[in-house]
Amino acid sequence: MKTLLLTKEEVDGLICMHEVIGAVEEAYKAFNSDQVLQPGYIGIHLPSPRGEVDFKLGYNKANEVISMKASSGGFIDNPTAHGVPSGMGTILLFDARSCALTCVMDGSLITGLRTGAAGAVSVKALARKNARTVASIGTGNQARMQIRAINEIMTIEEVHAWDSHPDTLARYKRDIETEFGIPVVMPNSKREAVEQADILVTTTRGKGSLVEADWVKAGTHIVAIGTDQQGKQELDPEIFRNAKVVVDSMAQCAEKGETWHPLNKKIIAKDDIHGEIGEILVGKKPGRENDHEVTIFDSTGMAIQDNVAASRIYQNAIDRGVGTFFEFFKS
Amino acid sequence: MKTLLLTKEEVDGLICMHEVIGAVEEAYKAFNSDQVLQPGYIGIHLPSPRGEVDFKLGYNKANEVISMKASSGGFIDNPTAHGVPSGMGTILLFDARSCALTCVMDGSLITGLRTGAAGAVSVKALARKNARTVASIGTGNQARMQIRAINEIMTIEEVHAWDSHPDTLARYKRDIETEFGIPVVMPNSKREAVEQADILVTTTRGKGSLVEADWVKAGTHIVAIGTDQQGKQELDPEIFRNAKVVVDSMAQCAEKGETWHPLNKKIIAKDDIHGEIGEILVGKKPGRENDHEVTIFDSTGMAIQDNVAASRIYQNAIDRGVGTFFEFFKS
Repeated sequence: MKTLLLTKEEVDGLICMHEVIGAVEEAYKAFNSDQVLQPGYIGIHLPSPRGEVDFKLGYNKANEVISMKASSGGFIDNPTAHGVPSGMGTILLFDARSCALTCVMDGSLITGLRTGAAGAVSVKALARKNARTVASIGTGNQARMQIRAINEIMTIEEVHAWDSHPDTLARYKRDIETEFGIPVVMPNSKREAVEQADILVTTTRGKGSLVEADWVKAGTHIVAIGTDQQGKQELDPEIFRNAKVVVDSMAQCAEKGETWHPLNKKIIAKDDIHGEIGEILVGKKPGRENDHEVTIFDSTGMAIQDNVAASRIYQNAIDRGVGTFFEFFKS
Repeated sequence: MKTLLLTKEEVDGLICMHEVIGAVEEAYKAFNSDQVLQPGYIGIHLPSPRGEVDFKLGYNKANEVISMKASSGGFIDNPTAHGVPSGMGTILLFDARSCALTCVMDGSLITGLRTGAAGAVSVKALARKNARTVASIGTGNQARMQIRAINEIMTIEEVHAWDSHPDTLARYKRDIETEFGIPVVMPNSKREAVEQADILVTTTRGKGSLVEADWVKAGTHIVAIGTDQQGKQELDPEIFRNAKVVVDSMAQCAEKGETWHPLNKKIIAKDDIHGEIGEILVGKKPGRENDHEVTIFDSTGMAIQDNVAASRIYQNAIDRGVGTFFEFFKS
């Protein structure tokens, strides 16, 4: 029995953002069509300066693939002490018909890609059709990935960016302007950035409100990326009071997403959540209904996104003859 | 960064049962010395004729290795429909200092080996020193593995074997007599087999009591292997009433081991459980204290057994230059 091995470089060449966006849409649709099993993930937290490693398992009945992603992060001494990145990843794919191991691929890139794509999928479903301006609170890697993905599906005329670290912000401005030719404005305050936004993207490691409710203008679509565990927060929970709230997974977002905060403060009840994004994509629920409503997409990240994106990468590798086969046992 | 790949054949040649027994002892000791983190495992159950796949994660502070074993079983159509075994396995090892992926090895053999070794470790700690006769209820692969392991640490003069399938029993007799030169007696009944036992090993897929309490003679050591999830059972719970009960993991055995049954029937309370086998191995609790007591070892299987056994295999591979290095990314 042969297993395909794919390096990080090969993975990088095997999928473009356009395809990842398609994969994430497919994942969300599968999730809301009873095609997905995703047991709660397991992980190990190690003492500082080490980080954590999580194992996320997903089964997609639509493609009969079981995926397991091991993903580490926060090992801040790795580059200097061990010569490896502070976070790494490995993905296993199994053929769910036999449970044979079909693929072992480097999984370092996929989390960033599918999270970027998630933002773009939400923009398609929830942003105003005449949206042109993106405000980015946070200017790290995932902030770049959001622009890369949103730029695939609409014309961004201007990015208004804010970061608590001026150096990071300056690098972001240079990179976005060079790579995409989109002008990046550096406003005098977060408030100024938010007030300019047709689409507001938050991708920080924030642990408290960074965006106040009265800064958000009518018609804004908010892509809330940063909060994926208890203790993190980016938005004033008051923003949720009159917004159309869409989540990737109701169970996850209510427990550890940005949505946990307004639920916890009883600003909204679970019934006030409009629904899961897959429900909109499969047509069970409407997306944006007018140009005035504020929409929020709360993304915590799901194993099924990894599953579908990695399956596409694997299929592309097979089709293009990329990768190295290894026989773990003779059958 | 380089990751070592090990095939099933290479794994088979890299460790002998003697070493696995040492590894499992080390694992049990680590578990009872606050050196182990083992989050609850996650799995997916597929509809018949497919089976299930489990993912077990363990972190051993003593060797700074994080292991993840993916293990499938019960895919009964695999040999005919897909040309692969009904169960397969894959083990990932990570260096816990950086979370770098150090090894991907076939994991088909390790569960059988470490479970066999577990029985032998319990025999060392709990069987009478003058034990000579083993009774085996169940004569499948794991029954063979138990004999292979116990044979490493004592002289077995005779095996009394019983199975509900006469063909399986006949093959077992032939194999054990050929491989180990130990005579296998086929008694007229289970009762006769049990009554002959110094050591009673149960390795069935039983879902009800197979061994009655009044068949068990004083001084017997029972190795209860088969029950590792709710719904399985091999022993009359009355056997536990006056026995010295030792478990691999209190949490697991009370929830899904053989020990669940007498607890559920209130034949014993949790406080009546003598302890975990690691507590005996590190000297915190006594093992067998006289030739009359009945001892029971309830084994449900722990990720840390896979962790330590796989780490030995990896180390042996490095020392002997066995395996294939693969670079998942350049660092």
